[in-house]
Amino acid sequence: MDEPGSCLARMRETAPLVHNITNFVAMAVMANVLIAAGASPAMVHAREEAAEFATLAHALTVNIGTADPDWGTAMEEAAAVMNGAGRPWVFDPVGVGATRFRQALSERLIALRPTVIRGNASEIRALAGLEGAARGVDAGDSVEAAAEAARLLACRTGGIVAVSGPVDYVTDGKEAYRVANGHPLMPRVTALGCALNGVIAAFCVGQPALAATTAALAFYGLAGETAARSARGRAASSRPSSMPWQR
Amino acid sequence: MDEPGSCLARMRETAPLVHNITNFVAMAVMANVLIAAGASPAMVHAREEAAEFATLAHALTVNIGTADPDWGTAMEEAAAVMNGAGRPWVFDPVGVGATRFRQALSERLIALRPTVIRGNASEIRALAGLEGAARGVDAGDSVEAAAEAARLLACRTGGIVAVSGPVDYVTDGKEAYRVANGHPLMPRVTALGCALNGVIAAFCVGQPALAATTAALAFYGLAGETAARSARGRAASSRPSSMPWQR
Amino acid sequence: MDEPGSCLARMRETAPLVHNITNFVAMAVMANVLIAAGASPAMVHAREEAAEFATLAHALTVNIGTADPDWGTAMEEAAAVMNGAGRPWVFDPVGVGATRFRQALSERLIALRPTVIRGNASEIRALAGLEGAARGVDAGDSVEAAAEAARLLACRTGGIVAVSGPVDYVTDGKEAYRVANGHPLMPRVTALGCALNGVIAAFCVGQPALAATTAALAFYGLAGETAARSARGRAASSRPSSMPWQR
Repeated sequence: MDEPGSCLARMRETAPLVHNITNFVAMAVMANVLIAAGASPAMVHAREEAAEFATLAHALTVNIGTADPDWGTAMEEAAAVMNGAGRPWVFDPVGVGATRFRQALSERLIALRPTVIRGNASEIRALAGLEGAARGVDAGDSVEAAAEAARLLACRTGGIVAVSGPVDYVTDGKEAYRVANGHPLMPRVTALGCALNGVIAAFCVGQPALAATTAALAFYGLAGETAARSARGRAASSRPSSMPWQR
Repeated sequence: MDEPGSCLARMRETAPLVHNITNFVAMAVMANVLIAAGASPAMVHAREEAAEFATLAHALTVNIGTADPDWGTAMEEAAAVMNGAGRPWVFDPVGVGATRFRQALSERLIALRPTVIRGNASEIRALAGLEGAARGVDAGDSVEAAAEAARLLACRTGGIVAVSGPVDYVTDGKEAYRVANGHPLMPRVTALGCALNGVIAAFCVGQPALAATTAALAFYGLAGETAARSARGRAASSRPSSMPWQR
Repeated sequence: MDEPGSCLARMRETAPLVHNITNFVAMAVMANVLIAAGASPAMVHAREEAAEFATLAHALTVNIGTADPDWGTAMEEAAAVMNGAGRPWVFDPVGVGATRFRQALSERLIALRPTVIRGNASEIRALAGLEGAARGVDAGDSVEAAAEAARLLACRTGGIVAVSGPVDYVTDGKEAYRVANGHPLMPRVTALGCALNGVIAAFCVGQPALAATTAALAFYGLAGETAARSARGRAASSRPSSMPWQR
């Protein structure tokens, strides 16, 4: 596999336009993260224009954190555009276990075979059908406990599945990598997990998805480590945060 | 009444999942505030899932700052779930005097008897029907001028009413407390008032609402004082900000 | 023309209430920018209340970055209220070249003759019909290349047109000013361009629009220069960002 640094350099050469249909909490953070990484973000979700906009984009991310039925349709239509053009898209099944609406929408999106699915351990388990009781809260599940779910899911979609956590797990169903970068403060800042979707999508433009996803996770974790060195705030609690968009 | 510190400690033991149907301006700030305080935030407002999600939450906040009719329905349904489960919910009548839509929605929400209503002086007066001319701008009204409105409103709903300002006023219609914490920079940062709703909701989980609300206001004001000590920006004007979501 | 400083002082005396129908990415940043500048922001976009709220506001901004058809209607109705009351409103045609939906909505808004149109070079060119191929990405177009488009557009609407860039260009179709303030880091922070719309609107309250817009651009650029002096982050790339809401 390439050096993560090469993947980053190639991403920055492209400076890809990343189309995001993401939740309201994450939009501004994600835009700033993508600009800082060297990509070009756009947040476009209206049904009236999402598919048309997708034809301009190098990559797409869809995140169901604050979706509604119209957004769901926009996600499906934009994803179909990316599939037709052979361009990468990343799916984040935020809180998939929490409501029937999220489950149904996630199933429709998985059927479109995302290039990359990224979630926390409970989401990936719920998505793989391993755990019917998961309800959007990931307190109990470790990344290790989701590795088998990730492999199953990757085999089913033919894409990459990444499980975020203290040590990330990335697999295409055959090979697997672990990424141990990052900092405990990262899950204490809202929307950092959501913003990562955009970085993964940007790295995947014109690069093999398994290597690109792994490189994106390493890059992002290193950025968090760097930022943590100058962070002056204190985490209020040592407890890991539990809702998906707190990752 | 318990020490505010005991209320905080118990809230952190629970690390409650707080479901928020709040305005777009406040979502990210509120998520970060709740994580920092030790709770777990979720922003879920679609009609298709708000009530179902509420069954998972320890507490709920509803804020009409950027509501529309669908959100209004989601707020009512989620509040009914909390009432049925005996769980606390906080209502913030942002700019209630500004439009007929806000007034009508606020009346429907008050009829559901929120555990806590929190607003600025003009909102609380408008809500109590004391001032027909209030239009979402609180420039003229002092917290003192809203104390009687707060008492009336608390008697009507059987809940707590908190009036935010330089000295906050909290009452259950019989007893009342004043909280003098906080810093003049706080109303100069958008959405800090909205984010406070989440902290109040978190404190109210499993704790008596009058004491919990008072403790939440003290905790929040102290956090603002601490933050202000290291703030390097300058307020552009000494004028207090006037719109609700500038609090 | 007045000193920019006089325009600023008069704006702060008024502390105008600025009603914004803007995109989700920009809302919180814009609110904080307006408070810091000395104005009072409100984000209100629901069709059920936007026009009624507009009757309370001193000025309005509309930004199509994340609009949908209902928001478009709210924008038109609120703009009509401002026109009827002789109050200023600012239109930001974010990504107008990207989709047919944006083009159609922008044409309806231009027909209402905004007090000020502010955009980047590609948007202003697309809006003036000079460049059918512009698709929301401004990489190639310089501000100079949009000066003629700005003049044409100003003559058509009878209003002010401002082109943002390293050196801003402002014209009423007859006179023109260039503003060379600002800092290269500003386009690297999301939503700073969108937030500027609010500052322009605030400056235009009770002041001649050409002078007020020019003063607002100078004030904003100077604020950016001041902020950049204490900025500790590094831009990830020297490439100028390309999407409208990265400005």
